[in-house]
Amino acid sequence: MTSRIIGVGNYIPTQTITNLFFDKHHFLDESGKSLKQDNATIADKLKEITGIEERRYAQNDQVTSDLGFIAAQNAIENSGIDPETLDYIIFAHNFGDVRFGTIQSDMVPSLASRVKHLLKIENNLCVAYDVLFGCPGWIEAMIHANAFIKANIATRCLVIGAETLSRVVDIHDRDSMIYADGAGAAIIELSDDDSGIKSHLSASFTLKEKDYLYFGKSYNNQNCPDIKFIKMNGRKIYEFALLNVPGAMKKCFDDSGYAINQLKKIIIHQANEKMDEAIVNRFYQLYNETVPENIMPMVIHKLGNSSVATIPSLLTMILNNELPEHTINKGDVLLFASVGAGMNVNAFVYKY
Amino acid sequence: MTSRIIGVGNYIPTQTITNLFFDKHHFLDESGKSLKQDNATIADKLKEITGIEERRYAQNDQVTSDLGFIAAQNAIENSGIDPETLDYIIFAHNFGDVRFGTIQSDMVPSLASRVKHLLKIENNLCVAYDVLFGCPGWIEAMIHANAFIKANIATRCLVIGAETLSRVVDIHDRDSMIYADGAGAAIIELSDDDSGIKSHLSASFTLKEKDYLYFGKSYNNQNCPDIKFIKMNGRKIYEFALLNVPGAMKKCFDDSGYAINQLKKIIIHQANEKMDEAIVNRFYQLYNETVPENIMPMVIHKLGNSSVATIPSLLTMILNNELPEHTINKGDVLLFASVGAGMNVNAFVYKY
Repeated sequence: MTSRIIGVGNYIPTQTITNLFFDKHHFLDESGKSLKQDNATIADKLKEITGIEERRYAQNDQVTSDLGFIAAQNAIENSGIDPETLDYIIFAHNFGDVRFGTIQSDMVPSLASRVKHLLKIENNLCVAYDVLFGCPGWIEAMIHANAFIKANIATRCLVIGAETLSRVVDIHDRDSMIYADGAGAAIIELSDDDSGIKSHLSASFTLKEKDYLYFGKSYNNQNCPDIKFIKMNGRKIYEFALLNVPGAMKKCFDDSGYAINQLKKIIIHQANEKMDEAIVNRFYQLYNETVPENIMPMVIHKLGNSSVATIPSLLTMILNNELPEHTINKGDVLLFASVGAGMNVNAFVYKY
Repeated sequence: MTSRIIGVGNYIPTQTITNLFFDKHHFLDESGKSLKQDNATIADKLKEITGIEERRYAQNDQVTSDLGFIAAQNAIENSGIDPETLDYIIFAHNFGDVRFGTIQSDMVPSLASRVKHLLKIENNLCVAYDVLFGCPGWIEAMIHANAFIKANIATRCLVIGAETLSRVVDIHDRDSMIYADGAGAAIIELSDDDSGIKSHLSASFTLKEKDYLYFGKSYNNQNCPDIKFIKMNGRKIYEFALLNVPGAMKKCFDDSGYAINQLKKIIIHQANEKMDEAIVNRFYQLYNETVPENIMPMVIHKLGNSSVATIPSLLTMILNNELPEHTINKGDVLLFASVGAGMNVNAFVYKY
């Protein structure tokens, strides 16, 4: 018994933020000292490593649940289902709704409840909840949906990942250039053929790694220390990801029973292009194979890191033929993988 | 196949807050006008309806994940398990960690990650995530754990509910007297006999009900409207609960296959004693039965409404023989039920 995706949707926010947006920002290091390089050089170096040239921000009057709602609508339309037939709406995020110009996270009621309300769903037995699992939240929510379907308590679920990281960035931190806003969603249901989720794996590394990604004070010591922003230890995350993600991907892939040459695409969370390339290289090294061409679609150049939204949004772009070099055909074997705050790592193998 | 509780624990915060604490508060109505009654009268009326005489607040240096950690430790000790054998740590809350004197919710990394870190668990395959589902979050997290066990992706889970509502109250709102802090936890694992969860039900009412419980501005119009607090429409919640909870409890109980006279205890979320009594009355009316004596343990008088913490904390008190009028014996049939922000309603039937 497995569960398959019958529709996808995304919402790409309309505000394009180029690196010029950050040109007047006063970037500081962790101790509060000004960075030596000028901002253009910093942006170029960031682009060289992460691949990020542009990112998208939500409009000022939108919040995360609004983005999630649009992606959900698109996924419902794409699947052709009646939304009243949904058993679950699972919304992955990490910061709730943070209105522009404010600092509080609003998640009462849950963002899933807000989306269900906006979708005007009347079926009270459609259960709406939120899951917090760092950037890997959407994959984790898909694993939840799959478990509910396997446990026979659901047959059809809407799984949303949306985030507005632009609302929690420290403008004095150059890492602020990495973060973006976005939303993606999928409808997943009990599969009546052999397509669907074939294996999955989740892991939480918390002993030493808990604070590699965290909510911390501004690098500007003049700012109120009680106001917190998304913060990361980029070097440690890089090392952590290289050490742990390829092996987790391999374990998950081996569990699926497929041979490595059957793998058609790796849909991986996009926080850093060089890191993703290194992960995929090491993954293939574990099989003594070289990386096939076009195995990894990459949209970070124009979209930045939109957390939980990245993977469902990217999947939607591929299935909508918006990435000419990447197609997914019936029968293709895909590997989804993510890494992020927790530190959490997860993956699933999917036969289309 | 079912799953049973093998250990419970709670943490009752040590700051006892009597109604006198609120004596100097300037209570206003929704429009910002002073309430006509004096605070002693308001507190007496509140006590008459909700039953609340006292509530507990966390120490100023504690946050929600700290309370959850202590409850988790107690549940682990109570069960006698090695925490390294846990497959999941699921943490239900609604506001994240809000440090005393600040207004931001901190939930990156997730509270489950924080607890796992504090428990010093090395097993990376123990998956730590948070669920947001209003006050019914702990019951919902138990339903998740049960589903993972049924789907054969877990055999043992730690399920925590903890909240510090004292950090999100509007001091100008008399409803602030209702809210409390607390934590409770249970270890649930694959059952090897017929004890465990027999049936469950979850529902989300979002069409008209989404904002019956919400995060809104202070009743004091002088306050910054961007600073939000837990707010509720008490009358609408009362009517909603009376209309929907007894029927949901009956549907869940009937699904278990037990006869109504086999039911030994109703462990219900405690936000309002009169409301709980009315719910239980109506539940028995649906069976044309009168309410048995001592069916519903009630700890709201001394503990207030501690959201997701209430039910696991109460269960722990009963099993620890801290409520002389209430015992649970092997074979007893229990009905757990909750209602809260979303608006969400859920229940499960449990054979001890």
